[in-house]
Amino acid sequence: MKTIGIGLAGFGTVGAGVYENLERHRDLIAERSGYSFDVRRIVVRDPLKKRDVQATSGLFSKRWQDLLEDPEIRVVVELMGGTTEAYDLTVAAIQSGRIVVTGNKALLAERGAEIFALACEHKVPVFFEAAVAGGIPIIQSLRDAFVGNRIESVHGILNGTSNYILTRMQEAGMDYPEALAEAVQLGYAEADPTLDVNGWDAAHKAIILAALAYGFWVDPSTVRVEGIDRVSAADIHFAKGLGYAIKMLGSVRVIDSLVEVGVAPTLIPQSNVLASVNGVFNAIAVRGDLVGDSLFYGRGAGRGPTSTSVIGDLVEAAHILDAPRGTYGFSSHGLYGNNRPSDEIIGSYYLRLSVDDKPGVLARIAGLLGEAGIGISSVVQPESIAGVETPLVLMIHEARYGKMRETLAKIISLDCVKGSPVLFNVESLT
Amino acid sequence: MKTIGIGLAGFGTVGAGVYENLERHRDLIAERSGYSFDVRRIVVRDPLKKRDVQATSGLFSKRWQDLLEDPEIRVVVELMGGTTEAYDLTVAAIQSGRIVVTGNKALLAERGAEIFALACEHKVPVFFEAAVAGGIPIIQSLRDAFVGNRIESVHGILNGTSNYILTRMQEAGMDYPEALAEAVQLGYAEADPTLDVNGWDAAHKAIILAALAYGFWVDPSTVRVEGIDRVSAADIHFAKGLGYAIKMLGSVRVIDSLVEVGVAPTLIPQSNVLASVNGVFNAIAVRGDLVGDSLFYGRGAGRGPTSTSVIGDLVEAAHILDAPRGTYGFSSHGLYGNNRPSDEIIGSYYLRLSVDDKPGVLARIAGLLGEAGIGISSVVQPESIAGVETPLVLMIHEARYGKMRETLAKIISLDCVKGSPVLFNVESLT
Repeated sequence: MKTIGIGLAGFGTVGAGVYENLERHRDLIAERSGYSFDVRRIVVRDPLKKRDVQATSGLFSKRWQDLLEDPEIRVVVELMGGTTEAYDLTVAAIQSGRIVVTGNKALLAERGAEIFALACEHKVPVFFEAAVAGGIPIIQSLRDAFVGNRIESVHGILNGTSNYILTRMQEAGMDYPEALAEAVQLGYAEADPTLDVNGWDAAHKAIILAALAYGFWVDPSTVRVEGIDRVSAADIHFAKGLGYAIKMLGSVRVIDSLVEVGVAPTLIPQSNVLASVNGVFNAIAVRGDLVGDSLFYGRGAGRGPTSTSVIGDLVEAAHILDAPRGTYGFSSHGLYGNNRPSDEIIGSYYLRLSVDDKPGVLARIAGLLGEAGIGISSVVQPESIAGVETPLVLMIHEARYGKMRETLAKIISLDCVKGSPVLFNVESLT
Repeated sequence: MKTIGIGLAGFGTVGAGVYENLERHRDLIAERSGYSFDVRRIVVRDPLKKRDVQATSGLFSKRWQDLLEDPEIRVVVELMGGTTEAYDLTVAAIQSGRIVVTGNKALLAERGAEIFALACEHKVPVFFEAAVAGGIPIIQSLRDAFVGNRIESVHGILNGTSNYILTRMQEAGMDYPEALAEAVQLGYAEADPTLDVNGWDAAHKAIILAALAYGFWVDPSTVRVEGIDRVSAADIHFAKGLGYAIKMLGSVRVIDSLVEVGVAPTLIPQSNVLASVNGVFNAIAVRGDLVGDSLFYGRGAGRGPTSTSVIGDLVEAAHILDAPRGTYGFSSHGLYGNNRPSDEIIGSYYLRLSVDDKPGVLARIAGLLGEAGIGISSVVQPESIAGVETPLVLMIHEARYGKMRETLAKIISLDCVKGSPVLFNVESLT
């Protein structure tokens, strides 16, 4: 039995969970892994704050530098969040030769390229299972289990809060503000749920999945990211009538040697297994050239699932602490060095307009689409429902997103088109 | 870049797939892992046999001992199948200090205790991702990702052939012989599908999953294993009417410190995600005390998926080839040293009888169940359908399996009960 000294930065839901569960399952983890983990210091903003998980008060410190001044601390667990102090700590930990375990998706998505270049240079592994879908071993699976596969696509429901909201809208017919309020009340959404509902939490995760699948870091500013605040009960209803569910879908795929990454509310066929992933659950579908289709499903967030991922990483870190290290944990394999700008990505779309109920309206809209070379696969004029007068739904196949937006701008300037249009992607996932 | 010499035993579907895919994806694997794998020798029964995958003829040998006589071979990949020569090779490879990667579920289920004791003694990891649900990283996930969890249960659809047959019976209304014939014709079943349909292939996998979850090897002779040949179209129809699908379910769980392992056709609620796992697909649901419910889904068999698992194991082996080794790969953590004999396992049941259509029949049957202290949760008398005259279906909750069988013997000796009874487990999976 070997004892590994670790330093913990952050003692929120996840940090406190890691501490608590390392204690609670000390014997289990030791029996299963051969290691015992000794939390030697915990960095927090306010050491005197009252907490729901108790730790020896002498462990707390306000200075992250303390973690690096203790030679017995060999693994730094970064669960502070943010991209400033967390970045400084991560860089300093790598430079000191310590293995880093992190759950910080924003940090990796924004500065992953620098961090992993430094990690490779110092031969220091950085583990980050907790950064994407806590409790679902998708990082380990993409990196290790599927190492022999050319990854064709990764599609995921990557944010439990937005999936809970969409599920309630779908199942209980709630509108967005009502479902959001319920999620906040039940504790499924933070008091400030901005990153959850605006798509950026999922986008950070999609960028990390793309990096694992394709070996380079996509610039976040080139990724199309749309939130769920534009999804209405009316569109969920219309989509259902067409055989689709609306999900906040993170998409990563390679087409003609360019990687495409995006996160947006997306219509997916009701028959697809991702359509039945409901509530706060996450799921990730991976397609590899050898393995075919596979799917991973689980809670994706919360104290227990996310500390599961951190503890898994700690054991992996322990196994290789004294091993000669290659680029283990991550290598920029650089198979594809570029991603396709979002305007160039070809997609299929659900376009819902409110129009004047007069003859000739469809002809004018179809004319503009036709001029742009955009084909319509079907047109539905559903009954008006609350908040949506005279709706017109067009299903559009295979159009470049930039062209689609350009044409949509022309369509909404027609005097027969009223109110805000709704444009969602449609993914057949076949 | 480091080159790792490997020796391959077996060149069937999986062995040839590993060879082919290591070649095809040499650059990809090297870029992603930092390793290049050099197959230095391939052991086969008949080196001159014509094969669909070509390999340099000089690589073939009939003697497995050749693998151990080449000092450049550092990892032995055992894909021969069987439990005699494969056992000898595995033991000799471990004794020579070579890491073993195996896909041999029968060998591990029957002799895992000996093999892992030897592996621990020699500090030689044995990797076996390919032994359970090829392409689904369930071994790595249970062993590493969920190392911090007390595993509460593992339920899985672990055999694609039997799942294909049950799916066709369910969807197309075929009877068992017809669905089996189709599976053989489409190549989803071997010419001799005995181990697939009699439950033993799935049982071997369930025993391996139990070993990972609970740290000891269950004696196969104590496991209840039932095949799908007793599932009829009539029972699938009756189960459907009651809200259930019939699946060949492998179950591993711990109740009151005793581990329960079994494989049998089982009624599961149609609303459960496992009920919608169809065709040749496999799925495994794991419940951990921290992670909650999670699910892994994929093809589970075939050349591409299974060689995915072997290649993943090879990279993992390469990472630790020169590392100081603990009990990495497997340890007998011995949390629970015993499994409950199958007769002592408490379950719920679907009991279908054919009875005389006379008054008093139900009272006599209910009387026997009542005397045994077995409660009936519902009784249904469905319409007779082809092959099943006057069916009577009883849903029975919470009875010891041995008691249930004993009582069933009394029931079928009643003169009002005709033909063979059908007894399946019911799992609510909640």
